[in-house]
Amino acid sequence: MRIAIQGFEGSFHQIAAQGYFGRHTEVECCASFAELVKKVKQQPDVDAGVMAIENSIAGSILPNYSLLKNSGLHVNGEVYLQIKQHLMVLPGQTLEDIREVHSHPMALLQCMDFLEKHPHMKLVETEDTALSAKHVHQKKLKSTAAIAGKLAADIFGLEIIAPNIHTVRNNYTRFLVISRNGTAPVPDANKASVYFHTSHERGSLARVLTKIADAGINLSKLQSFPIPAREWTYYFHADMEFDDLELFNKGLARITPLTENLKVLGIYKKGNTH
Amino acid sequence: MRIAIQGFEGSFHQIAAQGYFGRHTEVECCASFAELVKKVKQQPDVDAGVMAIENSIAGSILPNYSLLKNSGLHVNGEVYLQIKQHLMVLPGQTLEDIREVHSHPMALLQCMDFLEKHPHMKLVETEDTALSAKHVHQKKLKSTAAIAGKLAADIFGLEIIAPNIHTVRNNYTRFLVISRNGTAPVPDANKASVYFHTSHERGSLARVLTKIADAGINLSKLQSFPIPAREWTYYFHADMEFDDLELFNKGLARITPLTENLKVLGIYKKGNTH
Repeated sequence: MRIAIQGFEGSFHQIAAQGYFGRHTEVECCASFAELVKKVKQQPDVDAGVMAIENSIAGSILPNYSLLKNSGLHVNGEVYLQIKQHLMVLPGQTLEDIREVHSHPMALLQCMDFLEKHPHMKLVETEDTALSAKHVHQKKLKSTAAIAGKLAADIFGLEIIAPNIHTVRNNYTRFLVISRNGTAPVPDANKASVYFHTSHERGSLARVLTKIADAGINLSKLQSFPIPAREWTYYFHADMEFDDLELFNKGLARITPLTENLKVLGIYKKGNTH
Repeated sequence: MRIAIQGFEGSFHQIAAQGYFGRHTEVECCASFAELVKKVKQQPDVDAGVMAIENSIAGSILPNYSLLKNSGLHVNGEVYLQIKQHLMVLPGQTLEDIREVHSHPMALLQCMDFLEKHPHMKLVETEDTALSAKHVHQKKLKSTAAIAGKLAADIFGLEIIAPNIHTVRNNYTRFLVISRNGTAPVPDANKASVYFHTSHERGSLARVLTKIADAGINLSKLQSFPIPAREWTYYFHADMEFDDLELFNKGLARITPLTENLKVLGIYKKGNTH
């Protein structure tokens, strides 16, 4: 399998791709989410893509919902990944040797409690966590550490001298597995991603959500978006969880007359959140 | 009145502040939205703030919802502003003289149809639209145009040689007027911003929205957010429109037992969308 990811080798996207497709998955690195979607759509040797869609602290990555909706691609699965940051160095270097720490600004921020306890370390902001690890490896940088995920240490032969230095524990990112393949449900499918418009009529969204609840479907996420062509009207992206695919299909049939442009992006197996 | 805005003098935030508080409003420019909120909270000579909250094309500015929720500030009003971009130059310069166009990358993108018809103009990305206009004025830059809103041309004495060069017409930004003042409703109040959690129980959001609709309240916006302390649970920010404040108060009383942490951020008069 060859899987398109956003970012560089050793990134959290690659960890997510390995978590879903297995450790020997090949990755195709993309410079942006738009490039990721394009490669999954058009490049024959790319079998699927793994794309971050929301984070338990920062919230939804709104532009990725639009990319997905406009791509015509399908959702085939999801992966939840806990974001764990580690301090990594060239083998043999110790905490006392370190003068500079390189990483993405967001990762530096996530490790601020640790970094404040080591004020002699100068912080250097970079483009990417995994790229910082690669840089330390390639340039044989002594006295320099990178903050990145475990896979970056494995790939670039670095030693983790301070593991799990992130302050907030419940920092999870949810990734969607996307492909050109249709929405034929996988075995044991128990989750679906759909989008729809509701009419302007008062209470129309309440009626849709009531039908969903009555059908025994649990709404795990509801995200509203403006419709560019119509000012201040919204469409909704909803994630639904169910025990039985029949229940979902019945629920879907009941909300179809209450919505406009209802589209199923994918029916898949709920990812393990721990 | 002294009103805190995000950005520089001549910006769309200042146009929005003038639209709400009148043409002679003084502005306090803030480098970030976080600084804006801080100044409204703490600086005694700042009477209120004007903060962008969503755009009809780009969607919600999610971090600003969190800033607002955590600030303890109140919403006292809203302004809708159509984003119109103009090409402006030192007086006397013509379209044929222009070799460089300076503006924020987003503004350049919004005017791409116009710019592609003038391929001899080199595009220069800057920090801000209004700051580009100021730069042309201060440095007396010939052969250089800025793309910015009309107010920037007025303030910096530039001439608009190509008005309304933005491609998409229905590009509106919604701004909230925020202050330390409480939520005592203004006369003719017909809109409210609230947030709440719902329980994990299936259908709980549907029950809340049904009560809102039954009370004759129109839900104009519903935005879900993750709750950082609890993985993958969400709270909701809702904007509600009503004809009569009594209806809103009755509806609010009915949804209170169905929600947790219900809080009214403000009761105000709906802004004119055109």
